[in-house]
Amino acid sequence: MKHILSVLVENEPGVLTRVTGLFARRGFNIESLSVSPSLDENISQITMVVYGDKRTIEQIVKQLYKLLNVRKVQNFNYISNITRELMLIKLKMSIKTRAEILDIIKIFNANIVDFSQNIITIEVTGETEKLISIESELKKFGIIEYAKTGKIALVRNLDNIKDRTIGI
Amino acid sequence: MKHILSVLVENEPGVLTRVTGLFARRGFNIESLSVSPSLDENISQITMVVYGDKRTIEQIVKQLYKLLNVRKVQNFNYISNITRELMLIKLKMSIKTRAEILDIIKIFNANIVDFSQNIITIEVTGETEKLISIESELKKFGIIEYAKTGKIALVRNLDNIKDRTIGI
Repeated sequence: MKHILSVLVENEPGVLTRVTGLFARRGFNIESLSVSPSLDENISQITMVVYGDKRTIEQIVKQLYKLLNVRKVQNFNYISNITRELMLIKLKMSIKTRAEILDIIKIFNANIVDFSQNIITIEVTGETEKLISIESELKKFGIIEYAKTGKIALVRNLDNIKDRTIGI
Repeated sequence: MKHILSVLVENEPGVLTRVTGLFARRGFNIESLSVSPSLDENISQITMVVYGDKRTIEQIVKQLYKLLNVRKVQNFNYISNITRELMLIKLKMSIKTRAEILDIIKIFNANIVDFSQNIITIEVTGETEKLISIESELKKFGIIEYAKTGKIALVRNLDNIKDRTIGI
């Protein structure tokens, strides 16, 4: 089963290596990972998509907490959440295929970011399933290359409200 | 100076740790990193934003090539490119601030992805400067939290064309 883990870490050299090393030593397959600054400039947020059963992931969360500079770990599978990722796709577009490609771009609310010499680059954001769908629709035109960001996630606001009322 | 490095690696456990470890041992500050599957299912693409002078980055690129399972390294600073990142921002929105926030969302071509209990979550994509601008415009309303993907990049098509004609 896929799990989305968010790991808040202090900005110290080596912390990312310690986190990914923990998964590597256990032979874990990391599907995607993104790390970037958070609202607190001393803290970075690592979001990872990893495969594993519930028990194994629970163990790894405990081990993450034991690592130096790890502040907080959240498993988004157990929290109502909003997830998004971003994909840039470069593909061939001829006069013959143009109308159909532009329709697909419209359907998926994607944006054209570059076009030159019959090669078009588009950006699209969404949940993983949406990105899989647009990729599958565009495949027949000849995808030249793509780049994906990996998933990021925020707690959906409803849970925040619940969390706040627990203490009352 | 900031450099955008793209590293194509074989999908083997430990390769990400080897790559980040190389930077950590040299005390490099990684601003953002994203790793996700590529068009070839055996290859993942790591995109990193790192600080360093030209000479130091050239050395690290050479050392990256010596690592196991590293296939290709590109420094996007020397290639015409398209870069994008994605940000989810959660902030307070009252009846009083609503009109202004909605205007900012429109100006930056952002999307609302959640709204509940006076808290709004929006997604916005663009180059780093655009994300800094929208964050700075929204700051006064009270940003609760955000998540960023880190930068991804593709070669702008013009360079592809040049590359192809070199061999003729």
